[in-house]
Amino acid sequence: YVEYIFCLPGSLHLNVFIFVKYNGQTDTGQYPTLGDSPYGSLWPLPQKVKISTVVFKLSGASFHIFDAKESSSGASCRLLQNAYRRYDEYIFTSSRKQGQNKSKKALASDMSELQVWITSADSECDSYPSVTSDESCEFTGMVFVFFHFSHLCHVNSLLHSTRRPHPCLNTSRMITEVNYLTAMAWNKFNVFHWHIVDDPSFPYLSRTFPQLSQHGAYHPYTHVYTPSDVKMIIEFARLRGIRVVPEFDTPGHTQSWGKGQKDLLTPCYSGASPSGSFGPVNPMLNTTYDFMSMFFKEVNTVFPDAYVHLGGDEVDFSCWKSNPDIQKFMEQQGFGMDYSKLESFYIQRLLDIITTTNKGYMIWQEVFDNGVKLKSDTVVHVWMGNKVEEELQKVTEAGFTTILSAPWYLDYISYGQDWQKFYRAEPLSFKGTDAQKKLVIGGEACLWGEYVDATNLTPRLWPRASAVGERLWSDRDVRDLNDAYSRLAKHRCRMVQRGIPAEPLFTGYCAHE
Amino acid sequence: YVEYIFCLPGSLHLNVFIFVKYNGQTDTGQYPTLGDSPYGSLWPLPQKVKISTVVFKLSGASFHIFDAKESSSGASCRLLQNAYRRYDEYIFTSSRKQGQNKSKKALASDMSELQVWITSADSECDSYPSVTSDESCEFTGMVFVFFHFSHLCHVNSLLHSTRRPHPCLNTSRMITEVNYLTAMAWNKFNVFHWHIVDDPSFPYLSRTFPQLSQHGAYHPYTHVYTPSDVKMIIEFARLRGIRVVPEFDTPGHTQSWGKGQKDLLTPCYSGASPSGSFGPVNPMLNTTYDFMSMFFKEVNTVFPDAYVHLGGDEVDFSCWKSNPDIQKFMEQQGFGMDYSKLESFYIQRLLDIITTTNKGYMIWQEVFDNGVKLKSDTVVHVWMGNKVEEELQKVTEAGFTTILSAPWYLDYISYGQDWQKFYRAEPLSFKGTDAQKKLVIGGEACLWGEYVDATNLTPRLWPRASAVGERLWSDRDVRDLNDAYSRLAKHRCRMVQRGIPAEPLFTGYCAHE
Repeated sequence: YVEYIFCLPGSLHLNVFIFVKYNGQTDTGQYPTLGDSPYGSLWPLPQKVKISTVVFKLSGASFHIFDAKESSSGASCRLLQNAYRRYDEYIFTSSRKQGQNKSKKALASDMSELQVWITSADSECDSYPSVTSDESCEFTGMVFVFFHFSHLCHVNSLLHSTRRPHPCLNTSRMITEVNYLTAMAWNKFNVFHWHIVDDPSFPYLSRTFPQLSQHGAYHPYTHVYTPSDVKMIIEFARLRGIRVVPEFDTPGHTQSWGKGQKDLLTPCYSGASPSGSFGPVNPMLNTTYDFMSMFFKEVNTVFPDAYVHLGGDEVDFSCWKSNPDIQKFMEQQGFGMDYSKLESFYIQRLLDIITTTNKGYMIWQEVFDNGVKLKSDTVVHVWMGNKVEEELQKVTEAGFTTILSAPWYLDYISYGQDWQKFYRAEPLSFKGTDAQKKLVIGGEACLWGEYVDATNLTPRLWPRASAVGERLWSDRDVRDLNDAYSRLAKHRCRMVQRGIPAEPLFTGYCAHE
Repeated sequence: YVEYIFCLPGSLHLNVFIFVKYNGQTDTGQYPTLGDSPYGSLWPLPQKVKISTVVFKLSGASFHIFDAKESSSGASCRLLQNAYRRYDEYIFTSSRKQGQNKSKKALASDMSELQVWITSADSECDSYPSVTSDESCEFTGMVFVFFHFSHLCHVNSLLHSTRRPHPCLNTSRMITEVNYLTAMAWNKFNVFHWHIVDDPSFPYLSRTFPQLSQHGAYHPYTHVYTPSDVKMIIEFARLRGIRVVPEFDTPGHTQSWGKGQKDLLTPCYSGASPSGSFGPVNPMLNTTYDFMSMFFKEVNTVFPDAYVHLGGDEVDFSCWKSNPDIQKFMEQQGFGMDYSKLESFYIQRLLDIITTTNKGYMIWQEVFDNGVKLKSDTVVHVWMGNKVEEELQKVTEAGFTTILSAPWYLDYISYGQDWQKFYRAEPLSFKGTDAQKKLVIGGEACLWGEYVDATNLTPRLWPRASAVGERLWSDRDVRDLNDAYSRLAKHRCRMVQRGIPAEPLFTGYCAHE
């Protein structure tokens, strides 16, 4: 990020007096004092940074970002040119509005240019970001700054997810997704885990099975993601170095699927007759697997990422147990009364289908816990809040890569500065070899959508997710709460100034207001 | 409210499937099922209501609200005309936009008019709402609806408050206050308890002491309430039947006062010398009382309401204890080591000053608890979360009126449907005579601003505060959670449709989206 070069040593001191009206509830955290960090507003903190005591001015009239002569990628790289333009706007829009630079000439101490030097042979300008993309970058030099990066230089091994399938994509709501991805890039989140369907709604408009959203979405044309909506989101993300990993969660969390796809879900019984309600996907019918095969064939073409998230969490067995046909099937298969075997039976067949599409897959931890046979490149998603370290130990012992989201459920809100709780979590504290630790390829901040929509998503997400961003991107030893507080307060003001209404950490105000 | 007449019996059924991703935290409440309430979207529920099975259409082309011939108030009453216009806009704007009524003629079953009949001799058209205003109203008749009301017909014995002195009032922020009062009216909140200054900032621009905001506000001209800002807010509130009760909290919570007013605060000591920091208002100096006398004289003229809130909460004694002059003063006054006596000494003199201005006063419960001698018309504000019932019992036993806010601290957020917690609270469950119960003149929902600003205020406030609104406005027996959930979900959608981003109660969507 360009602005990272300009960490002015602190001169502005804010005095914040702490008051807490206590009426019998406890606050979740300490109150760090708001001093000035030597790192200014840098967030998240890079692995290495050295602050110069010399302050360089940055003038919109004279400053330019351009491609270094030696760079392997240049003017033809739309992705880079887009990024230059974006950051030029971020940095200079407000000062240009105020007309600050119109009359000024460049001074000798001005920072006049930023040269971008791509050193890798493949600049990945026209491809999608992937898990193997080299995202390391470096700023060096003084007035002439060279920096090396692979594609976009906002790097994180993070997934970001929301449970509520954003219910609609008319113009105003599209803004929600766009804001979301924009702020993700600022906070170095590089994977958008798009939990696009769930029990309440099926907003994904499938070309193969249009009846799914026709009957399963909140509304069949105002509350759906059309193929072109999906394309736009993927492209908007790509330009910011963000992968889009869709999740189509089965066999549970599929109530909305059943509305448009007859016989896909298991009929629940009340005594000897069907109750009229439905349970998880029906694992005993061949039609189920025919459907899944066709459905995921489409998913494979629509979503370019090498991975798809297949879910597999929270399967409720009660409906299966009530159904006499399922009982008979259990008997035939020799599963006894162990319904997790039936679940695994389903998942196993689903995984076999996906394998034929050449997609890699992620699954929620239950699938691993139940002993389903997984491809060696499977990513196991650890989300349960209990026994997190044991689970990480087991998963990595078995040789699987893993993504951790258990400590970062942002939908769990509480009074006070709970960003500190997310910030303190340490993903590598489990017992294991260095090789095992390396299998933890990232973390994910989740904001499930039961209590969230466009009215409250953004301030609930930011800057709380920013705390997760630094935990996962910066050095493990970056843990000073006071320093973090100072930087994060400024970072959140920067987000507000750029149009993302991130909520305040505490009292105080933003200098730009 | 005009729209209350039109409670269409339910025909729209939403199916909501409940899913909760459980990762080790507990949810705060049950999940009510979303059926349809026989009362449609009525919120809060009136004391009496009868739903007609006949549905009347309301056509923007033909419907008019006007003054009944017999009404004691009519076309010259700006307050009423304003309310008619407002509700006409609320009800018909969206349908007119869609051009629904342009081509349609009035049908026989149309509701064609609403006659407003003010029966009280004094319509209070040009005065401010007061605690004695008769706010009862009634809708009767069928096609011709007469309704009686005193002034605005949105009545509640509620105060509404926010701790963070809204730090700024530039155009964009003024919208915050305006939105706040607008939604208050919809939810029958009739008092805006304006906690206008506190430790972090003194945004109130005083004509008498302009240096207070000059030095004590976050910013001396962008983050202040000018006299005309205050006037506009009071008038905007008046048109909606909302009283504005300002709070100038002393002797604690006054850090920001000290920046512009020399010698007002007590210098704290570190050993034998001043530490440079300051504590509560200095109670031993006559200059303190001279200042307060002049300051509250101004407050008296700026704020027309008959009451002012004087605070008196959470006084920290440590600074007083450290100061040798205060120690000497304590000795002279014979207070021993009991610093609450010093606090009461201050408050007592302050109350005497206010009494001369003819304002009534409210105080936080500590002032009562410390045995300060109070005027008989004092309103004691019960806010502490522990021993609420005992406190209410004591306060009313002593004959004072009281406002309860302890169960309704909306700044305490938690995961899940916490509106239910606010909804379940019962303010009159304490032991006491009927006469004592009558002294509980209202309740207050508080949203202290430590973690709130314009980015997240509105969705955090609504519809959680709406739950408090119904608890305090509707009959005590109105407690059915399923019925409330159904109505509140619709009520929140109505707020969103009218431009107030109230957050969702749970999954689902709004019909207007």
